[in-house]
Amino acid sequence: MAISMYTASVPPLIRCLNNLSGILEKGAAHVESQGIDPSVLINFRLFPDMFPLSKQVQIASDVARKGVARLAGMDAPPIEDNETSFPELITRSRNTVDYLNTFTPEQVDGSEEKIISLPVRDEVYQFPGLPYLLTFVKPNVYFHVTTAYNILRHSGVELGKLDYLGKPGN
Amino acid sequence: MAISMYTASVPPLIRCLNNLSGILEKGAAHVESQGIDPSVLINFRLFPDMFPLSKQVQIASDVARKGVARLAGMDAPPIEDNETSFPELITRSRNTVDYLNTFTPEQVDGSEEKIISLPVRDEVYQFPGLPYLLTFVKPNVYFHVTTAYNILRHSGVELGKLDYLGKPGN
Repeated sequence: MAISMYTASVPPLIRCLNNLSGILEKGAAHVESQGIDPSVLINFRLFPDMFPLSKQVQIASDVARKGVARLAGMDAPPIEDNETSFPELITRSRNTVDYLNTFTPEQVDGSEEKIISLPVRDEVYQFPGLPYLLTFVKPNVYFHVTTAYNILRHSGVELGKLDYLGKPGN
Repeated sequence: MAISMYTASVPPLIRCLNNLSGILEKGAAHVESQGIDPSVLINFRLFPDMFPLSKQVQIASDVARKGVARLAGMDAPPIEDNETSFPELITRSRNTVDYLNTFTPEQVDGSEEKIISLPVRDEVYQFPGLPYLLTFVKPNVYFHVTTAYNILRHSGVELGKLDYLGKPGN
Protein backbone atom coordinates (compact mmCIF):
# COMPACT_ATOMS: atom_id res chain seq x y z
CA MET A 1 0.00 0.00 0.00
CA ALA A 2 1.39 3.42 -0.94
CA ILE A 3 1.48 6.20 1.60
CA SER A 4 -1.22 8.82 1.06
CA MET A 5 -2.84 11.62 3.03
CA TYR A 6 -5.47 9.09 4.13
CA THR A 7 -3.11 6.28 5.14
CA ALA A 8 -0.91 8.81 6.99
CA SER A 9 -3.84 10.26 8.94
CA VAL A 10 -6.97 8.21 9.56
CA PRO A 11 -5.59 4.74 10.44
CA PRO A 12 -2.73 5.99 12.70
CA LEU A 13 -5.05 8.44 14.47
CA ILE A 14 -7.64 5.70 15.01
CA ARG A 15 -4.93 3.43 16.39
CA CYS A 16 -3.69 6.17 18.73
CA LEU A 17 -7.17 6.92 20.05
CA ASN A 18 -7.97 3.24 20.50
CA ASN A 19 -4.80 2.97 22.56
CA LEU A 20 -5.94 6.03 24.53
CA SER A 21 -9.21 4.26 25.33
CA GLY A 22 -7.23 1.29 26.65
CA ILE A 23 -5.01 3.60 28.74
CA LEU A 24 -8.11 5.24 30.24
CA GLU A 25 -9.61 1.80 30.97
CA LYS A 26 -6.48 0.95 32.97
CA GLY A 27 -6.84 4.28 34.79
CA ALA A 28 -10.45 3.44 35.64
CA ALA A 29 -9.47 -0.05 36.87
CA HIS A 30 -6.70 1.48 39.01
CA VAL A 31 -8.91 3.95 40.88
CA GLU A 32 -11.51 1.21 41.35
CA SER A 33 -9.01 -1.31 42.77
CA GLN A 34 -7.22 1.28 44.94
CA GLY A 35 -10.34 3.00 46.24
CA ILE A 36 -9.22 6.37 44.83
CA ASP A 37 -11.80 9.07 44.00
CA PRO A 38 -11.71 9.01 40.17
CA SER A 39 -12.04 12.80 40.01
CA VAL A 40 -8.57 13.11 41.55
CA LEU A 41 -7.04 11.56 38.43
CA ILE A 42 -9.50 13.17 35.99
CA ASN A 43 -8.43 16.58 37.34
CA PHE A 44 -4.73 15.77 37.82
CA ARG A 45 -2.16 18.04 36.16
CA LEU A 46 1.61 17.59 35.86
CA PHE A 47 2.03 21.29 36.72
CA PRO A 48 -0.48 23.89 37.91
CA ASP A 49 -0.71 25.70 34.56
CA MET A 50 -0.91 22.52 32.47
CA PHE A 51 -4.22 20.98 31.45
CA PRO A 52 -5.75 18.16 33.51
CA LEU A 53 -6.28 14.62 32.23
CA SER A 54 -9.83 15.35 31.04
CA LYS A 55 -8.66 18.24 28.85
CA GLN A 56 -5.79 16.19 27.40
CA VAL A 57 -8.35 13.66 26.15
CA GLN A 58 -10.70 16.35 24.85
CA ILE A 59 -7.92 18.11 22.91
CA ALA A 60 -6.61 14.85 21.44
CA SER A 61 -10.16 14.12 20.28
CA ASP A 62 -10.70 17.59 18.82
CA VAL A 63 -7.38 17.87 16.99
CA ALA A 64 -7.96 14.46 15.38
CA ARG A 65 -11.63 15.11 14.48
CA LYS A 66 -11.14 18.63 13.20
CA GLY A 67 -7.87 17.72 11.49
CA VAL A 68 -9.26 14.95 9.32
CA ALA A 69 -12.46 16.91 8.65
CA ARG A 70 -10.49 19.96 7.44
CA LEU A 71 -8.38 17.79 5.12
CA ALA A 72 -11.68 16.51 3.69
CA GLY A 73 -13.00 20.07 3.33
CA MET A 74 -15.59 19.66 6.09
CA ASP A 75 -16.22 20.98 9.59
CA ALA A 76 -16.29 18.45 12.41
CA PRO A 77 -19.47 18.69 14.50
CA PRO A 78 -18.90 20.59 17.75
CA ILE A 79 -18.73 18.51 20.95
CA GLU A 80 -19.20 19.98 24.41
CA ASP A 81 -16.19 19.40 26.68
CA ASN A 82 -18.20 18.14 29.64
CA GLU A 83 -16.67 14.76 30.49
CA THR A 84 -16.02 14.32 34.21
CA SER A 85 -15.52 10.57 34.59
CA PHE A 86 -13.42 7.76 33.11
CA PRO A 87 -16.42 6.18 31.35
CA GLU A 88 -17.30 9.53 29.77
CA LEU A 89 -13.73 10.13 28.59
CA ILE A 90 -13.56 6.61 27.16
CA THR A 91 -16.81 7.27 25.31
CA ARG A 92 -15.36 10.54 23.96
CA SER A 93 -12.33 8.68 22.66
CA ARG A 94 -14.42 5.87 21.15
CA ASN A 95 -16.87 8.29 19.52
CA THR A 96 -13.89 10.05 17.95
CA VAL A 97 -12.76 6.75 16.46
CA ASP A 98 -16.28 6.14 15.14
CA TYR A 99 -16.24 9.59 13.52
CA LEU A 100 -12.81 9.05 11.93
CA ASN A 101 -14.05 5.72 10.58
CA THR A 102 -16.71 7.55 8.53
CA PHE A 103 -14.00 9.06 6.27
CA THR A 104 -12.99 7.33 3.05
CA PRO A 105 -9.61 7.56 1.30
CA GLU A 106 -11.35 9.44 -1.53
CA GLN A 107 -12.31 12.24 0.88
CA VAL A 108 -8.82 12.77 2.31
CA ASP A 109 -6.37 11.77 -0.42
CA GLY A 110 -4.95 14.54 -2.58
CA SER A 111 -5.31 17.18 0.16
CA GLU A 112 -1.56 17.96 0.29
CA GLU A 113 -2.00 21.47 -1.17
CA LYS A 114 -5.45 22.26 0.21
CA ILE A 115 -5.20 25.51 2.20
CA ILE A 116 -6.25 25.01 5.82
CA SER A 117 -7.15 27.97 8.04
CA LEU A 118 -6.34 27.26 11.65
CA PRO A 119 -7.27 29.62 14.48
CA VAL A 120 -4.61 29.44 17.23
CA ARG A 121 -5.18 31.81 20.12
CA ASP A 122 -5.37 35.30 18.57
CA GLU A 123 -3.94 34.38 15.17
CA VAL A 124 -5.20 32.48 12.14
CA TYR A 125 -2.54 30.35 10.55
CA GLN A 126 -2.95 29.21 6.98
CA PHE A 127 -1.02 26.32 5.62
CA PRO A 128 -1.33 23.52 3.07
CA GLY A 129 -2.75 20.14 4.04
CA LEU A 130 0.59 18.32 4.05
CA PRO A 131 2.34 20.46 6.70
CA TYR A 132 -0.98 20.82 8.52
CA LEU A 133 -1.14 17.03 8.94
CA LEU A 134 2.56 16.42 9.58
CA THR A 135 3.55 19.42 11.72
CA PHE A 136 0.31 20.17 13.56
CA VAL A 137 -2.34 17.45 13.68
CA LYS A 138 -0.26 14.37 14.30
CA PRO A 139 2.40 15.73 16.70
CA ASN A 140 -0.42 17.41 18.62
CA VAL A 141 -2.54 14.27 19.02
CA TYR A 142 0.51 12.26 20.08
CA PHE A 143 1.42 15.03 22.55
CA HIS A 144 -1.93 14.94 24.33
CA VAL A 145 -2.21 11.14 24.38
CA THR A 146 1.34 10.89 25.74
CA THR A 147 0.56 13.53 28.36
CA ALA A 148 -2.58 11.62 29.39
CA TYR A 149 -0.38 8.52 29.69
CA ASN A 150 2.23 10.46 31.70
CA ILE A 151 -0.41 11.86 34.07
CA LEU A 152 -1.66 8.34 34.80
CA ARG A 153 1.86 6.86 35.04
CA HIS A 154 2.88 9.66 37.41
CA SER A 155 -0.21 8.81 39.49
CA GLY A 156 0.81 5.17 39.82
CA VAL A 157 -1.30 3.51 37.13
CA GLU A 158 0.55 0.47 35.77
CA LEU A 159 1.01 1.22 32.08
CA GLY A 160 3.74 0.25 29.64
CA LYS A 161 4.92 1.68 26.35
CA LEU A 162 2.91 -0.89 24.41
CA ASP A 163 -0.30 0.51 25.92
CA TYR A 164 0.57 3.72 24.08
CA LEU A 165 2.02 2.24 20.88
CA GLY A 166 -0.16 -0.83 20.49
CA LYS A 167 1.47 -4.11 19.60
CA PRO A 168 4.06 -3.56 16.85
CA GLY A 169 3.18 -5.01 13.47
CA ASN A 170 -0.60 -4.76 13.86
CA MET B 1 4.33 18.50 -2.80
CA ALA B 2 2.89 14.98 -2.61
CA ILE B 3 3.19 12.98 0.56
CA SER B 4 5.84 10.25 0.38
CA MET B 5 7.77 8.06 2.78
CA TYR B 6 10.47 10.74 2.81
CA THR B 7 8.21 13.76 3.34
CA ALA B 8 6.34 11.86 6.08
CA SER B 9 9.52 10.92 7.93
CA VAL B 10 12.68 13.01 7.55
CA PRO B 11 11.37 16.63 7.64
CA PRO B 12 8.86 16.08 10.51
CA LEU B 13 11.44 14.14 12.55
CA ILE B 14 14.04 16.87 11.98
CA ARG B 15 11.49 19.47 13.07
CA CYS B 16 10.62 17.49 16.19
CA LEU B 17 14.27 17.06 17.18
CA ASN B 18 15.06 20.72 16.51
CA ASN B 19 12.18 21.58 18.83
CA LEU B 20 13.63 19.13 21.39
CA SER B 21 16.97 21.01 21.22
CA GLY B 22 15.11 24.25 21.96
CA ILE B 23 13.26 22.63 24.87
CA LEU B 24 16.55 21.40 26.32
CA GLU B 25 18.08 24.86 25.89
CA LYS B 26 15.23 26.28 28.00
CA GLY B 27 15.90 23.57 30.58
CA ALA B 28 19.58 24.52 30.66
CA ALA B 29 18.72 28.22 31.04
CA HIS B 30 16.28 27.39 33.86
CA VAL B 31 18.76 25.46 36.01
CA GLU B 32 21.37 28.19 35.37
CA SER B 33 19.06 31.05 36.39
CA GLN B 34 17.61 29.17 39.38
CA GLY B 35 20.90 27.80 40.66
CA ILE B 36 19.67 24.20 40.37
CA ASP B 37 22.15 21.33 39.96
CA PRO B 38 21.54 20.35 36.30
CA SER B 39 21.91 16.66 37.11
CA VAL B 40 18.71 16.85 39.14
CA LEU B 41 16.73 17.53 35.96
CA ILE B 42 18.87 15.29 33.74
CA ASN B 43 18.04 12.38 36.07
CA PHE B 44 14.44 13.35 36.83
CA ARG B 45 11.70 10.76 36.20
CA LEU B 46 7.93 11.19 36.30
CA PHE B 47 7.69 7.86 38.16
CA PRO B 48 10.39 5.64 39.65
CA ASP B 49 10.20 2.98 36.91
CA MET B 50 10.04 5.48 34.05
CA PHE B 51 13.17 6.65 32.20
CA PRO B 52 14.90 9.89 33.22
CA LEU B 53 15.20 12.94 30.97
CA SER B 54 18.55 11.84 29.55
CA LYS B 55 17.16 8.50 28.39
CA GLN B 56 14.08 10.14 26.86
CA VAL B 57 16.39 12.19 24.63
CA GLN B 58 18.59 9.19 23.80
CA ILE B 59 15.61 7.03 22.80
CA ALA B 60 14.04 9.81 20.70
CA SER B 61 17.39 10.13 18.91
CA ASP B 62 17.79 6.40 18.38
CA VAL B 63 14.27 5.69 17.15
CA ALA B 64 14.56 8.54 14.63
CA ARG B 65 18.09 7.60 13.45
CA LYS B 66 17.48 3.88 13.23
CA GLY B 67 14.00 4.35 11.81
CA VAL B 68 15.02 6.41 8.80
CA ALA B 69 18.15 4.28 8.24
CA ARG B 70 16.08 1.06 8.19
CA LEU B 71 13.65 2.56 5.68
CA ALA B 72 16.69 3.37 3.52
CA GLY B 73 18.02 -0.19 3.93
CA MET B 74 20.94 0.89 6.13
CA ASP B 75 22.07 0.55 9.73
CA ALA B 76 22.47 3.73 11.74
CA PRO B 77 25.91 3.99 13.37
CA PRO B 78 25.81 3.05 17.06
CA ILE B 79 26.05 5.91 19.57
CA GLU B 80 27.01 5.41 23.20
CA ASP B 81 24.34 6.66 25.62
CA ASN B 82 26.72 8.61 27.83
CA GLU B 83 25.25 12.13 27.94
CA THR B 84 25.10 13.56 31.47
CA SER B 85 24.57 17.30 30.88
CA PHE B 86 22.25 19.63 29.01
CA PRO B 87 24.95 20.64 26.48
CA GLU B 88 25.67 16.96 25.77
CA LEU B 89 21.98 16.14 25.29
CA ILE B 90 21.54 19.15 23.01
CA THR B 91 24.54 17.95 20.97
CA ARG B 92 22.98 14.47 20.76
CA SER B 93 19.77 15.97 19.44
CA ARG B 94 21.58 18.24 16.96
CA ASN B 95 23.82 15.43 15.71
CA THR B 96 20.70 13.36 15.11
CA VAL B 97 19.30 16.16 12.95
CA ASP B 98 22.61 16.33 11.04
CA TYR B 99 22.42 12.58 10.43
CA LEU B 100 18.80 12.74 9.23
CA ASN B 101 19.77 15.55 6.89
CA THR B 102 22.16 13.18 5.07
CA PHE B 103 19.21 11.18 3.67
CA THR B 104 17.74 12.00 0.29
CA PRO B 105 14.16 11.38 -0.86
CA GLU B 106 15.52 8.77 -3.29
CA GLN B 107 16.84 6.70 -0.38
CA VAL B 108 13.60 6.64 1.60
CA ASP B 109 10.79 6.92 -0.94
CA GLY B 110 9.14 3.71 -2.08
CA SER B 111 9.92 1.89 1.20
CA GLU B 112 6.26 1.23 2.04
CA GLU B 113 6.53 -2.55 1.53
CA LYS B 114 10.16 -3.01 2.57
CA ILE B 115 10.24 -5.58 5.37
CA ILE B 116 11.76 -4.17 8.55
CA SER B 117 13.01 -6.47 11.34
CA LEU B 118 12.67 -4.78 14.69
CA PRO B 119 14.04 -6.32 17.90
CA VAL B 120 11.77 -5.34 20.83
CA ARG B 121 12.76 -6.87 24.16
CA ASP B 122 12.81 -10.65 23.58
CA GLU B 123 10.91 -10.65 20.29
CA VAL B 124 11.73 -9.66 16.73
CA TYR B 125 8.81 -7.97 14.99
CA GLN B 126 8.71 -7.84 11.23
CA PHE B 127 6.57 -5.36 9.43
CA PRO B 128 6.50 -3.37 6.21
CA GLY B 129 7.97 0.12 6.04
CA LEU B 130 4.63 1.94 6.02
CA PRO B 131 3.29 0.61 9.35
CA TYR B 132 6.84 0.70 10.74
CA LEU B 133 6.98 4.45 10.10
CA LEU B 134 3.39 5.29 11.04
CA THR B 135 2.75 3.00 14.02
CA PHE B 136 6.22 2.68 15.53
CA VAL B 137 8.82 5.31 14.56
CA LYS B 138 6.78 8.48 14.61
CA PRO B 139 4.51 7.85 17.62
CA ASN B 140 7.59 6.70 19.54
CA VAL B 141 9.68 9.79 18.78
CA TYR B 142 6.77 12.07 19.68
CA PHE B 143 6.26 10.08 22.88
CA HIS B 144 9.81 10.58 24.11
CA VAL B 145 10.03 14.24 23.10
CA THR B 146 6.69 14.91 24.82
CA THR B 147 7.86 13.06 27.92
CA ALA B 148 11.09 15.12 27.96
CA TYR B 149 8.87 18.23 27.71
CA ASN B 150 6.61 16.95 30.51
CA ILE B 151 9.57 16.19 32.79
CA LEU B 152 10.84 19.75 32.37
CA ARG B 153 7.36 21.31 32.67
CA HIS B 154 6.72 19.27 35.83
CA SER B 155 10.04 20.59 37.16
CA GLY B 156 9.01 24.21 36.63
CA VAL B 157 10.72 25.03 33.33
CA GLU B 158 8.64 27.64 31.48
CA LEU B 159 7.69 25.93 28.23
CA GLY B 160 4.65 26.27 26.01
CA LYS B 161 3.07 24.02 23.43
CA LEU B 162 4.74 25.95 20.61
CA ASP B 163 8.15 24.94 21.98
CA TYR B 164 7.09 21.37 21.21
CA LEU B 165 5.20 21.98 17.97
CA GLY B 166 7.24 24.77 16.48
CA LYS B 167 5.46 27.72 14.95
CA PRO B 168 2.53 26.49 12.83
CA GLY B 169 2.92 26.95 9.11
CA ASN B 170 6.69 26.74 9.01
